[in-house]
Amino acid sequence: MKVTIERSALVRALGHVQSVVERRNTIPILSNVLLQADGGALTLTATDLDIEISESAPADVAVKGAATASAVMLHDIVRKLPEGAQVRLTLVDDEARLQITAGRYEGSLAVLPDEDFPTLASDDMDVRFSMPAADLARLFAKARFAMSQEETRYYLNGVYLHPYADGDVKLLRAAATDGHRLARLDAPLPAGAEKAPGVIVPRKAVSELARLLDDAEETVEVAVSSSKIRFGFGAGYLTSKLIDGTFPDYERVIPKTNPNALRVDNKDFAAAVDRVSTVSADRTRSIKLALAADRLRLTVNNPEAGSALEELSVDYDGEPLEIGFNARYLLDVAAQIDGETATFRLADPSSPTIICDEEDERALYVLMPLRV
Amino acid sequence: MKVTIERSALVRALGHVQSVVERRNTIPILSNVLLQADGGALTLTATDLDIEISESAPADVAVKGAATASAVMLHDIVRKLPEGAQVRLTLVDDEARLQITAGRYEGSLAVLPDEDFPTLASDDMDVRFSMPAADLARLFAKARFAMSQEETRYYLNGVYLHPYADGDVKLLRAAATDGHRLARLDAPLPAGAEKAPGVIVPRKAVSELARLLDDAEETVEVAVSSSKIRFGFGAGYLTSKLIDGTFPDYERVIPKTNPNALRVDNKDFAAAVDRVSTVSADRTRSIKLALAADRLRLTVNNPEAGSALEELSVDYDGEPLEIGFNARYLLDVAAQIDGETATFRLADPSSPTIICDEEDERALYVLMPLRV
Repeated sequence: MKVTIERSALVRALGHVQSVVERRNTIPILSNVLLQADGGALTLTATDLDIEISESAPADVAVKGAATASAVMLHDIVRKLPEGAQVRLTLVDDEARLQITAGRYEGSLAVLPDEDFPTLASDDMDVRFSMPAADLARLFAKARFAMSQEETRYYLNGVYLHPYADGDVKLLRAAATDGHRLARLDAPLPAGAEKAPGVIVPRKAVSELARLLDDAEETVEVAVSSSKIRFGFGAGYLTSKLIDGTFPDYERVIPKTNPNALRVDNKDFAAAVDRVSTVSADRTRSIKLALAADRLRLTVNNPEAGSALEELSVDYDGEPLEIGFNARYLLDVAAQIDGETATFRLADPSSPTIICDEEDERALYVLMPLRV
Repeated sequence: MKVTIERSALVRALGHVQSVVERRNTIPILSNVLLQADGGALTLTATDLDIEISESAPADVAVKGAATASAVMLHDIVRKLPEGAQVRLTLVDDEARLQITAGRYEGSLAVLPDEDFPTLASDDMDVRFSMPAADLARLFAKARFAMSQEETRYYLNGVYLHPYADGDVKLLRAAATDGHRLARLDAPLPAGAEKAPGVIVPRKAVSELARLLDDAEETVEVAVSSSKIRFGFGAGYLTSKLIDGTFPDYERVIPKTNPNALRVDNKDFAAAVDRVSTVSADRTRSIKLALAADRLRLTVNNPEAGSALEELSVDYDGEPLEIGFNARYLLDVAAQIDGETATFRLADPSSPTIICDEEDERALYVLMPLRV
């Protein structure tokens, strides 16, 4: 292999793929990035055995071939090269090293055989569709905060993506929950996605995707089977294994008839919750909301540290109600809401509460109350 | 105590004092900030028993008095209040709590008796002088990287500050060393500092000072005894205990007659060292400098990871020389150099090397070589 590539193109591609590499690996080759030079392009691939990220960049291929070398070191070296540098990568086969030359810099990295590099077979992904990158990014970005961190509830450690028909309206729906809160986001169902199975995209893939979608072109190609999902971004793709489990029937916990509607200015509400909860106990972060006609009173009482209260003018004509929440969960939801007004639909102090973005009917959040 | 103060003034003063508070304290009152309202000002003081930071801010004192409350919580609450808010602090004596009111926010924090708050006695600090804040900031900022982190060499865990006469030129000199590298910075000796004892200002005080000097007025008042030092900043001060130990006679290790002079472009040199050392072994970070007429060749050879070399055009007419350094130490020194050109004075591969900023004769660095 002998290939010359512009530094910035290489930094960009390496930046995209190398973050999937785990810092500590018992299998040495998993620390490496696979480099494949062929047909006017250099393709870089990295994996942790569950997720594979690959990206190609235009390159001047003098001798085609492949090699694997430390992903972190190669990325570090290349990003430290001066801007505009032309980087030459040469596999010195008999010495088992990859030579890196650019200007006056000449380095080499130990290589491992490219044929030992594990790949995620792109098996029968027979459901394929394309959708706007912005839609996909939004589904994951606004749902991910609600994913569970508990290893034992592995089937909640991801975002559940599935087609959904709301009467005549066909949707691609993303849901995440940790049992205390739930996020449900909708996007228009892309053509071809009707037959997609419901899949749980694992936590790490969700965060890698967020990064890749930031830089993505307008459209993302999705291919999915019952065990894997693949997101194609033009020059690259991410393939991830899916969580092998059953996502709970979360629609059951979304109340349909909460009678009491509260409208708050989302920014003012979040700022007040943040202030008042400063003195709350670390463990529960409990805050009480007391509602009466057009008035919301936030209180925290932590015998050890202190207490706080703040009153907000709100839009409320339901029955007087006192209800407790984890303040951090309230803030997490408020952070997803882009509109000016958040609307709450409440039933009673022990029933789940719905929170919506008044300007975005495709987003819905549910919070379980705390006993206060 | 009952006092009203503008939010931004309170945030600023709390921000300055609260960072000295240790996050975990076995003595509860050390988590608190002492508030003293008197004569048109609110004075805030925090301490970790070794360092005391205090600052006053103009305030409307309705009832004078004092209280102590959680420094971190008070800071958190106040910085979350809306900009421009007027904050009222009231000691509710019989309930042992400090009430905090601002707009619609009303909070209270548990208090501990102000008379239990420990203070660092400002004993007989009979040497007093004032100096430009910029000079003091520079002495500490450029010396601190060389302080030792080894607990056993406690007398190196700080910056040694002392008056020094270089012939007729009187200097205030700062030095720090960890045995592998040394930094020596000079400033003009302020009037009144001639009789100052040599003092070792501990690591934590050095970093607190860096923060305070960033915001300081033009002149700093220094008062020093054999056991304490105090830096006055107009509205506030920092008092620190000194390290009770003897700083080694570091001038002994600064070579006087290194014959080989090397001049390098500091930025290019640092970038090349950074690139070439990427493949160096984590533990030693060893890099080799090979010098010949007007040519510097940087090499690293790490059998496990790889190798690298880069050549720089430099200004060198000494004898050919190969010498090894810890790359991180070279980069630390390069980061202190503001001028374009760094000058090295070298003797041989096992003797200390001097590095200077060509445009700043008041700064000198020494590095011990590594065997390569």
